This record gives sequence, C-alpha cells and structure tokens, in this order.
Amino acid sequence: RRGEMAKSTQLIDNEVFRAYTAYAAIVLLKMMLMSLITAYFRITRKAFANPEDTASFGKGESAKKYLRTDTDVERVRRGHLNDLENIVPFVGIGLLYALSGPELSTALLHFRIFTGARILHTFAYLIPLPQPSRGLSWAVGYAVTFSMAYKVLKTAWLL
Amino acid sequence: RRGEMAKSTQLIDNEVFRAYTAYAAIVLLKMMLMSLITAYFRITRKAFANPEDTASFGKGESAKKYLRTDTDVERVRRGHLNDLENIVPFVGIGLLYALSGPELSTALLHFRIFTGARILHTFAYLIPLPQPSRGLSWAVGYAVTFSMAYKVLKTAWLL
Amino acid sequence: RRGEMAKSTQLIDNEVFRAYTAYAAIVLLKMMLMSLITAYFRITRKAFANPEDTASFGKGESAKKYLRTDTDVERVRRGHLNDLENIVPFVGIGLLYALSGPELSTALLHFRIFTGARILHTFAYLIPLPQPSRGLSWAVGYAVTFSMAYKVLKTAWLL
Repeated sequence: RRGEMAKSTQLIDNEVFRAYTAYAAIVLLKMMLMSLITAYFRITRKAFANPEDTASFGKGESAKKYLRTDTDVERVRRGHLNDLENIVPFVGIGLLYALSGPELSTALLHFRIFTGARILHTFAYLIPLPQPSRGLSWAVGYAVTFSMAYKVLKTAWLL
Repeated sequence: RRGEMAKSTQLIDNEVFRAYTAYAAIVLLKMMLMSLITAYFRITRKAFANPEDTASFGKGESAKKYLRTDTDVERVRRGHLNDLENIVPFVGIGLLYALSGPELSTALLHFRIFTGARILHTFAYLIPLPQPSRGLSWAVGYAVTFSMAYKVLKTAWLL
Repeated sequence: RRGEMAKSTQLIDNEVFRAYTAYAAIVLLKMMLMSLITAYFRITRKAFANPEDTASFGKGESAKKYLRTDTDVERVRRGHLNDLENIVPFVGIGLLYALSGPELSTALLHFRIFTGARILHTFAYLIPLPQPSRGLSWAVGYAVTFSMAYKVLKTAWLL
C-alpha cells in the first residue's frame, strides 16, 4: 500500500507536507462548517436572501416578510468571510512554506498555532466573547501566516 | 515535448493529478465568470457601488441615482460569494486529495460530480430555479468535498 | 543547506515554481494587507459591525452609534472581496500553470503583469483614481489568469 502511494507521488511521504495536509484540511473543513451554521440560523430565524427560498412559507406578502436580514445570520456570515480572508492565505502560503524545507518542529508550531487561533476566533465571534478575544485570535493567525510568508520569500529569493 | 515537461516536474505525469488540474481549472474559470456576469448586470441595470463608476453618466445628482443596489446584481454577487465559499475548499482539499494516491476512477467520480453540481448550482441561482434545486446542488458539492477531506485526513494520519 | 532542501522536495529547485512561489506569496500578502487597512478605517472612522467591538466606548446608546457602515470602510471591504475573487483563481491556476512546464520567461511575464495589475488595482480602488483605471487593472489581471488557465487545460488534455 505504501509503495502504491509512493508511486503516485513522493510529496505525501514528506513529514512536513503530511502535517500541512492534515492542518490545511482541518481549517478548510472548519471554514465549510460556517455554511451549515448559516443555514441553521437562516432556517431557525426565518431570515432568507432569495424569494425562491421562502416559497414554502406561502405566496405573496406572507412569504415576503422572511426576506430579511437577521443579526445572528449576519454575524455568522461575517465570521465566514473573515475565514475566507484568513484561511485562504494560510492554505496558499502554507503550501509554499511546506515545500520550502522548514524544520518539522517549526512547521508544526506554525500549523498548530494557526489552527488553534482560528478555532478560538470562531468561538469568539459566535458566542460572542468580549473583545479583545476575537481581535487577538485574529492577530495570532495573521502573524503565523506572515511568518510563513517571510520564510517562503527568503527561500524563493536566496536559494 | 513530453521529456521537456517531465524535466520540469513529474506531478503532471500522474493521471489523477492531471484530472485534478483540468477540473480545478474549470471550476475556477466558472467562478471567474461570475465577475463578468456581475459587470454585465451592473451596466445593463445601471447599478454601481462606487461614485467614480458613474462619472460618465454626468455630475452631481444625475449620476448619484446610479449608486444603488439592484436585485439581479445582488443575486449574482451572492452566487459569486457562494462559489468562493465552496470552490476554494474544493481546490485546496482536492489538491491534497490528488496527492493522497486515490484510485483514478474514484478521483474522477469526485471531480466530475463536484464540477457538475457547481455548474447546476449557478444555473439554479441565476435563472432562478425553484428550491430545492439550488439547495441540493450545493449539498452535493459540499458532500463531495467532505468525502475528499475524509480520505485526505485518513491518509495523512494513517500512513 | 541546499542539499537539505532538495531532500525534502525537488519542486522548489524548479525555477518556474520558485518564481510562482515568490509572486503568489506577494499577492497573498497584498490581499492580507486589506485586513489591516479595514481595521485602520474602522478605528479612525469609528464604524464597527459588532456590538462587542464598541464596548470600550461606553454602554448603551453612546456605544450603539458606532455600529454603522462608513463609505471608506465599505470601499476597502469591496477592494478586499475583489482581491479574493481574483487573487484566489490566480494562486490556484498559477500553481497548476507552474507545474505545466511553461518557459521561464513566459511564466515570469504572467506572474509580473498580474502582480503589477493587482497592486495598481488596489491604488485605483483606495485613492480612488478615475475610471477606467480600476476597470483596466482588473481586466489585465483577469486576462493573465485566463491565459494561464488556457495553457493548463491544453497541457492537461493534450499530454
């Protein structure tokens, strides 16, 4: 089985790349979870964006009142957009970082702190926790991505 | 010609990776198409977001009335954002999945169902088709990405 | 040191891939910068989206007035979303393009024009410059990504 995998690609045999793979998948799944939470709040708060989504509530005015914004729905959507703005650079820069030959322990530190910070960020946004919880968890994830970008650029230019 | 390519990288010689390459490019192009559709509706509906975009319609109040939201423009923008929220995880997790050594037939099944589901989703959003068309096409794409993430995490942890 | 890197991966030794790495990191960092500019305008314009962000301005009505949208903040946010819509396809398609074996000079031309166009786009959006500055810089970046996608699909299908 190992041989079969190695045949198709050697990348997955690299320990740093395997760690990147696991953490990138976890944060992308966490980001995808936001869609389900948005759907949950849209349905329980009866707050939809498209007329065709409210058709099952009847026709005309009775359905139109569910075409509205709701504070809880908007909060999840802001969290989701913030994930896109931060997890996308992590996944992109993280891939280049994993290929730039970092020490395994340093790489794990980066991946784990980022993943932890973004999970905290989601809790801080959705509960919500008082500031600066959300601000700090955002800043930690941001700094980790920045640190990986620094290593990537140093490697790409100096090699 | 083949030798030249092989010299620069072996990845592209892997059949699963080549399939990933084609489908990832197709769904990313489909996502990019949403920008053109937004521009089309902004121009035909005369609904802009920035004062500098309406300057050609004259100065002062006559131009200011085109700084407005329009239902059709907003609908395309929601479809575009939904693409970002779903196609980005597919491209990221799909890359890791393609490197995790899946069977070619299984991989093709994943890539093709996802691509078909997202094209259907766009039609369901823009026409619009009655629900649950959009909901189902979204759910199918979501499930495919989830299934690839499961394979990726299993490979990253068990190897 | 070179040997150590080569051991972990050969990709980074490929000149086109190294160029991709540098430009992808630069445009992703540029995109991340939009978060800081948004935060700057939110704080200086006192325009926030979450009640917990205004808690330090006092309780009740005195804080509630800072829960508002601001033209400058919204402008940066539109620029940020436009980056997501355009830089994400560049990073994804650019990776596949870098692996498709292009000439180094052609690849550099693509990467540099895209990066320049997106930096211009940000200035055109934030200053703002009169149209068609923003429209043209957007179109140039779009065309570059499209050109790379064409090469990727040709390689994936014809190889």
